[in-house]
Amino acid sequence: MKKILVIGIGAGNPDYITMQAVNALNRTDVFFILDKGPAKEKLTQLRKDICERYIQNHEYRFVEATLPERTRGVADYHGAVVDLNLAKEALFEQLINEQLAEDECGAFLVWGDPSLYDSTIRILNALIKRRGLQLEYEVIPGITSIQALTAQHKVPLNEIGDAVEITTGRRLAERRVHYGSNMVVMLDAENSYQCVPGDEYEIYWGAYIGTPDQILMSGRVDEVKAEIDRVRAEAREKNGWIMDTYLLKRI
Amino acid sequence: MKKILVIGIGAGNPDYITMQAVNALNRTDVFFILDKGPAKEKLTQLRKDICERYIQNHEYRFVEATLPERTRGVADYHGAVVDLNLAKEALFEQLINEQLAEDECGAFLVWGDPSLYDSTIRILNALIKRRGLQLEYEVIPGITSIQALTAQHKVPLNEIGDAVEITTGRRLAERRVHYGSNMVVMLDAENSYQCVPGDEYEIYWGAYIGTPDQILMSGRVDEVKAEIDRVRAEAREKNGWIMDTYLLKRI
Repeated sequence: MKKILVIGIGAGNPDYITMQAVNALNRTDVFFILDKGPAKEKLTQLRKDICERYIQNHEYRFVEATLPERTRGVADYHGAVVDLNLAKEALFEQLINEQLAEDECGAFLVWGDPSLYDSTIRILNALIKRRGLQLEYEVIPGITSIQALTAQHKVPLNEIGDAVEITTGRRLAERRVHYGSNMVVMLDAENSYQCVPGDEYEIYWGAYIGTPDQILMSGRVDEVKAEIDRVRAEAREKNGWIMDTYLLKRI
Repeated sequence: MKKILVIGIGAGNPDYITMQAVNALNRTDVFFILDKGPAKEKLTQLRKDICERYIQNHEYRFVEATLPERTRGVADYHGAVVDLNLAKEALFEQLINEQLAEDECGAFLVWGDPSLYDSTIRILNALIKRRGLQLEYEVIPGITSIQALTAQHKVPLNEIGDAVEITTGRRLAERRVHYGSNMVVMLDAENSYQCVPGDEYEIYWGAYIGTPDQILMSGRVDEVKAEIDRVRAEAREKNGWIMDTYLLKRI
């Protein structure tokens, strides 16, 4: 049976890779590379660098494909993502059918951890359950940008006995959050940290975490938010894209 | 200046260790080993095994100490944990002062990730800020039991665009949760999965995750909860302790 490995490669820093991931890289015949957007070239190169650095005495090849992109600016965000996932399913199925031989092992290299804000597991489950694809697969965890962020800021995610909410910039902007003691915000396109009571929260913010371009800022939200806005806009302008994550802690 | 490394060593499986953690192990002169409770011996041995496996051509020593334990069964849980942390601060200070030379590097090996339900970062910050200890320290992230759990079950933590709540068994038992689409429960001493509407949630449960003793179960809560109760009690009886984590997903 064909085999697929979904390998979490951690957030940015190649040293975040686990021994389990290194072993998985060394079992892989075909790496499917499906980057998109303005950071495509850089992300693809980082994946290839990781393979070159960690794979020893083992032949492998890359199969690159263009990942469909979500239609932006439509009102039905959820619907747009569902449509996107259907298009991704079709692409994954085609790649596995056409590019992977029966006894081969393929891999998807996922930034961060495959369980968090990533569609690979969902797509593979759909292909197996709904479309009857004959496939075995394994998931290999990776360090998320959340863990990289808290490690760099040397701040615990939770206070004693507390809960943690992991949410999206979109949900925070729409006030669909619980304003708890610890909120992690990911996928924020809109500077949504502006939406919390600025005198009640501290922010621990990071962009391009784990990479040489890393930027960290922290402080009471109302005291630092203008500066984060400025630094964020400048970095996005300079790099053509931004990927940031932040932790909001109630004071 | 003295240096401390807070090294996340992942959840159970020695292969979960990152390259960054391996590099950190190889910079360490003194490992502080502070296990406690019924699993103390096993946990201490696992730490020593990790050092033996990954440290090459570098001299190191272990300093073992008995970690104070929380007073159990008292009404004021938070107060008991605060008292415990003060006792831990005093112990950490003593160990760093007495067991680590001025140019040496010490390390604490933390199960999972140092940011999540662990006190090491909080204690070091307190020692530096409140008690004026002269110290540099670094945090190295590790794979949490949450990531190991979702990887083993091949289930995403969040559905598309969803939020995730990470909470404790105690909070769930007290109904201090938000009953969202995705709840991760840790530190559950009381089978608190009994406290969610059993026909509205699926549970993905795991104990001793990443170790050879690993047990996984999943299903609709009302259909599997009695079986999880039974397996959990049996495993705890057999091993003398249990460490489990689970994900509750709204159906």
